[in-house]
Amino acid sequence: MSKEINVPASGRPFKNNVTYCVGTGRMGLALQKEYIDHLKLVQQSIRFQYIRGHGLFCDDVGIYRECEMDGKTYPFYNFTYLDRIMDTYLENGIKPFLELGFMPEKLKTGDKTVFYWKGNVTPPVSYEKWAELITVTLNHLIERYGREEVVTWPVEVWNEPNILFWAGTMEEYFMLYDYSAAAVKKVDPRMQVGGPAICGVETEKWLKSFFEHCIKKDSPLDFITRHCYTANETTNCGHYIYHTMNDPTYMIEELKETRQIMSDYPRIANIQLHITEFNSSYVPLCPVHDTDFNAAYIARILSEAGEYADSYSYWTFSDVFEEADVPKSVFHGGFGLISMNSIKKPTFYAFEFFSKAGRELLYRDDHLIVTKNDDRYVIIGWNWHDMRDNKQSPDESYVLSLPAIGEQAILVKKEVGGAHANPMQTWSNLGKPRSLSGEQLAILQASAEPLQTDAKLFEQEGNYKVELKIPCNHLCMLEIFPVCDKTDTYLGYKQEEFYGME
Amino acid sequence: MSKEINVPASGRPFKNNVTYCVGTGRMGLALQKEYIDHLKLVQQSIRFQYIRGHGLFCDDVGIYRECEMDGKTYPFYNFTYLDRIMDTYLENGIKPFLELGFMPEKLKTGDKTVFYWKGNVTPPVSYEKWAELITVTLNHLIERYGREEVVTWPVEVWNEPNILFWAGTMEEYFMLYDYSAAAVKKVDPRMQVGGPAICGVETEKWLKSFFEHCIKKDSPLDFITRHCYTANETTNCGHYIYHTMNDPTYMIEELKETRQIMSDYPRIANIQLHITEFNSSYVPLCPVHDTDFNAAYIARILSEAGEYADSYSYWTFSDVFEEADVPKSVFHGGFGLISMNSIKKPTFYAFEFFSKAGRELLYRDDHLIVTKNDDRYVIIGWNWHDMRDNKQSPDESYVLSLPAIGEQAILVKKEVGGAHANPMQTWSNLGKPRSLSGEQLAILQASAEPLQTDAKLFEQEGNYKVELKIPCNHLCMLEIFPVCDKTDTYLGYKQEEFYGME
Amino acid sequence: MSKEINVPASGRPFKNNVTYCVGTGRMGLALQKEYIDHLKLVQQSIRFQYIRGHGLFCDDVGIYRECEMDGKTYPFYNFTYLDRIMDTYLENGIKPFLELGFMPEKLKTGDKTVFYWKGNVTPPVSYEKWAELITVTLNHLIERYGREEVVTWPVEVWNEPNILFWAGTMEEYFMLYDYSAAAVKKVDPRMQVGGPAICGVETEKWLKSFFEHCIKKDSPLDFITRHCYTANETTNCGHYIYHTMNDPTYMIEELKETRQIMSDYPRIANIQLHITEFNSSYVPLCPVHDTDFNAAYIARILSEAGEYADSYSYWTFSDVFEEADVPKSVFHGGFGLISMNSIKKPTFYAFEFFSKAGRELLYRDDHLIVTKNDDRYVIIGWNWHDMRDNKQSPDESYVLSLPAIGEQAILVKKEVGGAHANPMQTWSNLGKPRSLSGEQLAILQASAEPLQTDAKLFEQEGNYKVELKIPCNHLCMLEIFPVCDKTDTYLGYKQEEFYGME
Amino acid sequence: MSKEINVPASGRPFKNNVTYCVGTGRMGLALQKEYIDHLKLVQQSIRFQYIRGHGLFCDDVGIYRECEMDGKTYPFYNFTYLDRIMDTYLENGIKPFLELGFMPEKLKTGDKTVFYWKGNVTPPVSYEKWAELITVTLNHLIERYGREEVVTWPVEVWNEPNILFWAGTMEEYFMLYDYSAAAVKKVDPRMQVGGPAICGVETEKWLKSFFEHCIKKDSPLDFITRHCYTANETTNCGHYIYHTMNDPTYMIEELKETRQIMSDYPRIANIQLHITEFNSSYVPLCPVHDTDFNAAYIARILSEAGEYADSYSYWTFSDVFEEADVPKSVFHGGFGLISMNSIKKPTFYAFEFFSKAGRELLYRDDHLIVTKNDDRYVIIGWNWHDMRDNKQSPDESYVLSLPAIGEQAILVKKEVGGAHANPMQTWSNLGKPRSLSGEQLAILQASAEPLQTDAKLFEQEGNYKVELKIPCNHLCMLEIFPVCDKTDTYLGYKQEEFYGME
Repeated sequence: MSKEINVPASGRPFKNNVTYCVGTGRMGLALQKEYIDHLKLVQQSIRFQYIRGHGLFCDDVGIYRECEMDGKTYPFYNFTYLDRIMDTYLENGIKPFLELGFMPEKLKTGDKTVFYWKGNVTPPVSYEKWAELITVTLNHLIERYGREEVVTWPVEVWNEPNILFWAGTMEEYFMLYDYSAAAVKKVDPRMQVGGPAICGVETEKWLKSFFEHCIKKDSPLDFITRHCYTANETTNCGHYIYHTMNDPTYMIEELKETRQIMSDYPRIANIQLHITEFNSSYVPLCPVHDTDFNAAYIARILSEAGEYADSYSYWTFSDVFEEADVPKSVFHGGFGLISMNSIKKPTFYAFEFFSKAGRELLYRDDHLIVTKNDDRYVIIGWNWHDMRDNKQSPDESYVLSLPAIGEQAILVKKEVGGAHANPMQTWSNLGKPRSLSGEQLAILQASAEPLQTDAKLFEQEGNYKVELKIPCNHLCMLEIFPVCDKTDTYLGYKQEEFYGME
Repeated sequence: MSKEINVPASGRPFKNNVTYCVGTGRMGLALQKEYIDHLKLVQQSIRFQYIRGHGLFCDDVGIYRECEMDGKTYPFYNFTYLDRIMDTYLENGIKPFLELGFMPEKLKTGDKTVFYWKGNVTPPVSYEKWAELITVTLNHLIERYGREEVVTWPVEVWNEPNILFWAGTMEEYFMLYDYSAAAVKKVDPRMQVGGPAICGVETEKWLKSFFEHCIKKDSPLDFITRHCYTANETTNCGHYIYHTMNDPTYMIEELKETRQIMSDYPRIANIQLHITEFNSSYVPLCPVHDTDFNAAYIARILSEAGEYADSYSYWTFSDVFEEADVPKSVFHGGFGLISMNSIKKPTFYAFEFFSKAGRELLYRDDHLIVTKNDDRYVIIGWNWHDMRDNKQSPDESYVLSLPAIGEQAILVKKEVGGAHANPMQTWSNLGKPRSLSGEQLAILQASAEPLQTDAKLFEQEGNYKVELKIPCNHLCMLEIFPVCDKTDTYLGYKQEEFYGME
Repeated sequence: MSKEINVPASGRPFKNNVTYCVGTGRMGLALQKEYIDHLKLVQQSIRFQYIRGHGLFCDDVGIYRECEMDGKTYPFYNFTYLDRIMDTYLENGIKPFLELGFMPEKLKTGDKTVFYWKGNVTPPVSYEKWAELITVTLNHLIERYGREEVVTWPVEVWNEPNILFWAGTMEEYFMLYDYSAAAVKKVDPRMQVGGPAICGVETEKWLKSFFEHCIKKDSPLDFITRHCYTANETTNCGHYIYHTMNDPTYMIEELKETRQIMSDYPRIANIQLHITEFNSSYVPLCPVHDTDFNAAYIARILSEAGEYADSYSYWTFSDVFEEADVPKSVFHGGFGLISMNSIKKPTFYAFEFFSKAGRELLYRDDHLIVTKNDDRYVIIGWNWHDMRDNKQSPDESYVLSLPAIGEQAILVKKEVGGAHANPMQTWSNLGKPRSLSGEQLAILQASAEPLQTDAKLFEQEGNYKVELKIPCNHLCMLEIFPVCDKTDTYLGYKQEEFYGME
Repeated sequence: MSKEINVPASGRPFKNNVTYCVGTGRMGLALQKEYIDHLKLVQQSIRFQYIRGHGLFCDDVGIYRECEMDGKTYPFYNFTYLDRIMDTYLENGIKPFLELGFMPEKLKTGDKTVFYWKGNVTPPVSYEKWAELITVTLNHLIERYGREEVVTWPVEVWNEPNILFWAGTMEEYFMLYDYSAAAVKKVDPRMQVGGPAICGVETEKWLKSFFEHCIKKDSPLDFITRHCYTANETTNCGHYIYHTMNDPTYMIEELKETRQIMSDYPRIANIQLHITEFNSSYVPLCPVHDTDFNAAYIARILSEAGEYADSYSYWTFSDVFEEADVPKSVFHGGFGLISMNSIKKPTFYAFEFFSKAGRELLYRDDHLIVTKNDDRYVIIGWNWHDMRDNKQSPDESYVLSLPAIGEQAILVKKEVGGAHANPMQTWSNLGKPRSLSGEQLAILQASAEPLQTDAKLFEQEGNYKVELKIPCNHLCMLEIFPVCDKTDTYLGYKQEEFYGME
């Protein structure tokens, strides 16, 4: 049975921060051609403002070096690759949300590393040298890109120090934070700095301790960062890691909880909260990322997260990513919105659709959002189901009555899921090739496009009436905008001579 | 009720000349950027070998000139534009099928013209100067493009001399032919020359007279050319010209009749027959060209025409065309496979699909053709109905049994018609805009893509079983090729962890 | 002997309107690919703001049409091509400076035409229909491109009505002006309209009469337009038209004279003066346009014209131009800054160099201009000589003392003339081919580049010392800007290990 | 004083293998966008056939992996990156000359590595697994690229096993060779395999032992490979490594010596000899690579090396290279023909010029080569001097008398050195910036172009007379080909109206 909804003529602002930031594999990957191809695709359709990833100070970007000459050791800062990476970002209309980390070889105090690409996670041999690295790097960026530009780049201190990404103690992280934040502010007091970049382990303890530390030490703190993943524990199985998902509102609850903790500290209560990583699964080997389920599931999160967070950076925009080794196939469970070979995954469209949402929120429930921009409706619907029962869930059905914005309007609908914009299914039908031939690629890219249809709407008693069915694991967007019918200007136009055209 | 068909394992050669040649608006238009954009699109997907149009010797290409100096008149041949046009063709992998005409200003004997662009159709003031123009032009082309290349370019003498395109008599045309053919052969005896390029008026009289003339005069004649349009008479109405269509087999019958006439003359019987123009309607202001009906209708012709004709050149590849004035809107009833703004019309896909047909013909009826290339089936279906009864015709339904070419295969289906690859309908829903905004263009280009779906086929008792329904005014292509299932190489792969993927 | 010049540290504003506007062949040519290629080249290097040419209302653009239906005649305005042309301009960062003309076939009162492409120059059959054509066209442009954009497009009424471009009387032109200006202002009073677009024949009479007419009738008049060509009478000779040139100051004198006439009318005295066409020769078949002489000669004009005129629109940016028939060869004496096949002529660089001139004028004489922008000197020098004496003129030699803008600076010099950026000479060495092979094109494009050299300048007593020699028919630009010497940051750098590098 | 040379009308074949192969940084770098940009540049101008570099089996390409599941270990071969790299090569018209190495992490027997990027150089833990890796990889390549293609890719076993690139003994290398060669031949006996890929240390011992081993064991050996560098010992100094050069004939002598050793073994004497690496300096931190000296110096080698070697692969085509860490500046002494930011170094042109040399050798001395192709002369001259004396060496001066190939010819000269095509000098004048602004890049790219001039030659007594001066550290190419003078076809052409054009 359909839900009947009378959409009101006006609403309240839609807090939509979907395009604020997106995640990326380590920054050194931005030298790769395929990475850049994917970035272009994402920016053409979605236009994120910021990009955040690890590895700014890792040795593949290669900034911190030391050189011996005549018996003396000189520090040397090599910005060849950093400049190329930043050029690439800015040329593609995206700015860095800088994450300070990990530890350069020459500054490390131990050999603990994370990932296939071996990011060193030990505290610095000298906090002064670490601070100097930050200052020199930011000043170099200012010299190259201009002060007014660089002060708009937020700076986050380290990544997930509450788990294995930091080989020191919590107190050592706070020391790292203090040195880092001071170094940032020394470059320009307008630069925004924040932390603690934790994932969801001992959240309350870390947040409270961090807040209290900053307040006590009067350390600069312009925004709070944390990560949210909604998956349950993992099961390793050969080349895959599997796990089940919590409900998408799990993430909304985490955001509320974070805001709650923040609200206890007047200095903290109203500053920005950036979710610098989020996704369903937190491993790049889990098939969920490649599914149409994920698109519908993430859409539910996108419909509400902006109420609590100033950004929520999907981890990550591309499958050009090496944390768990070189990708082994076109579809391999990677985080990306785009798979190897530039194929858009279903979740890509969750971001594209929300990037087009209107500024005004007229209606929202668990499966539907109705927004408006000037004289255009943008409606997004989704219906996720994890299929653990091996059964399609029922359609979500709606009959919408929308205040008319003109005598005639066109409704353009884009659908994702099932037989469309679901390239992993087509890839499976192709036999699951690891690399693609030209023909396979053409089939997959066509299969990755949403199903677009359109229809004419006519005002009836001041409204448009729209029926909508959202099948299991589908995501859709409806754009409705007025059209000016020019048929009268076609001299001699006779409907019946158009072979069935309406 | 479905037609059940047991497709045999082998058949006979499919006589498919669909990519041999395509028509174009007058050659001077090849200087335009939009023309070139359309040519690129057509060549990417269809790769025609030859292109034929009017206007080689018209004054906008500007070859024949005279210059006065010191009281004397010198002929001057200006190849600036011709070279640019030919460069464009060759860069896009297409060769000219040269049509000699119309008459340059300086060689005309009267003022009769055709078209908005005023092609002069009068006999030459001097047949010797006309012949000289041909010789000089071909020799110039040989100098620029090489003799071995240019001798592969067929030459047709004039256009439709049996109607208003020729202000002289039939005998005068024969004289023009003799001078022209001799001029061509003088350049290189290997160059192929033909005529009489007539349309379907007094066909028998013209063909017989022409054949007898050439035989009697021993005039060179390497191939026969004529035109075929299947429309009934026209009704003018404002900016449109309407008419109804004959059955597509009307054209097949015309081809048979032409072959019959040819067969009476031993010297003629077995030479090539080129249909240097064909289409449903013969006016560039008739909506039929823009419809899904036309795609299905032309497909019927393409399925059989190769049995009788060595080529059938669709008139024309692009709506960049000015015979009836500058196009007035995106869709205006133009001949093109591609409309203004680079939007592919339904009929574009009739040519694309047949360009992919296999070399072996396994089955053919009035709505379906089954072909094969090595280990790949290419099946094309169509179902045309002119909608004069305002009712959808019934689906054409098939159950095909195809000899298996591997344990597993993928079936990729592309559908044209109705809600897909039918951009004129979407354009109508948009209010029929004459020029397009960027957003309108994006919607239309997406709407112009065929609906692609895919499925896995499994061998059952040596066969694949395929059910196919072709709705009213739809055209479809099914490609079936074996796949190698690599699922076993995915260590730890568990079907149930893929959220419903099969 | 060298001229020694102590350049002062500051000067006065350089009135430089070089990039305000450029001329074009008739607007219908903007559909051509090669035209667009040339426009891109010009805009990449020079970035003109406006483009002005004939033919807005000519029948190849095809705006004004009439259609008969059911015994009635309907006017029809076809904007298909106009929109494509304007899209092209705006996509390339250039706006139209609209010229209203010539007369559409359906509105003409006679058969007088100009040019190979037959622009009809007769008065309208109805001044009301003419005004309606203007209003409908401008309103269409506003609908498509936005009101705020279109009101920045100036509108000039007709072209050179004082000679054969207008088949009516002067008074009839004034009537045309009044109707046109009123139609423009009816669309939006902010739109700027002007005239009388005369060439240098009976200048004083036309200007005075026109001013007095507008004042008397209170006709809108936002700016004055006229044309300036500096050539003497023509000699026709086969495919060429030859003539000699006046001194470049001839044009400066014409500008002063025009300002003088304007100054007699208080309402007119201080409005804008746009030279909507200028060049040396006024025929597109005169070799002077292709020479290095012309670059140096035009540079002299560009160095001073801004003192008197708000714009001076070089006629024209490209040899894609058909007033005197289709171009007959790569170099044929056309007006363009760029020849067929996208080869930059020497004069191209006169515009490029002046487009880079500084906002501050420090020094100017007959062969040199020294300008400054912030911390950068831009110096342009030229030395023209018409070679009628078959002898090279002596070099112009300078020793400049420039106030230093840093301890070290780089001087980058670009030279045009003689063996460099003089492709007509190379083309002559190639045997004067009419169309080019790929290799010939590559040689010519390389030969069309200026000779670039660079040198280090060091401050000496607060100045840089620069010696400059400008040979006969050379043009050069020197850019001087400070450099930060980073040599010290190269650890272990030893000058003597660099094989002669300084 | 000039050398007078009467060039004969015919000569002998010029053994020119300059385009056979070029070196590259490790294969994993081929994923980078800048690497691909440089490859495109090189292929546009030079079109090498093969490319050879290290790192096929290194862990950044990531082929060899092992995976645990259910207590068992499975080998896994990941070809994701390899396929992308090979696609890139083939798309750019270049094939791999495969080098088998270095050792994957999972197959290593120790921790010895080379380079900043840590290539492991220890023998395999199992020679069978190593052979399996080869076989699986080559079979995969055949599956993807086709057998007929892949059998044209030569295979070299390891790199410089005679120094620190091999942690085993000579005998262990021979064992590696035997296993490898057998694995290659097992894939397809037509595949060509060779070694020992040594550098110039204990050459004679290694070659003889290797030849004797292969003969004795009847191991497949299709070609011999070695490396040649002409530098003396190194001096480390901060970020640079300096050394002086031997005369370029040093390399020619090494080639002769190698051929001499080969000639002692009948089975070996006449097989191919590939110099799979050569250059002046063998370190990527030596300024010589960036100089005009190097262009002239390498040209001397290129003029003769083909007499003795079937290929000589310049090490390397691009400064995208990381053996000695990430490049620290635009010019940093890297091996590449192209520096960071796509700036062509002088030596680029040595390869471009020799790639255009004619098939017929008419004259050769220490500074000049005269070749001919059909009706075109290609003359290359060079004059190297190491500037250790701080003085320019004298010009090499020639007066050439060349048998005429037509009444008129054009001479097109391209010069490299000094003020032209010497971008490191301009970069030094710019203050030696490490990263470039857009303006700096434009200046440098223009400064990197050769100086092109042209002149007309006229036959005099059957010859053309050409004077040529080659200044110190210059390289030049002269192309002479006949032109057809079309001046007569220009009606009304008057030389004196062309403002000094000849």
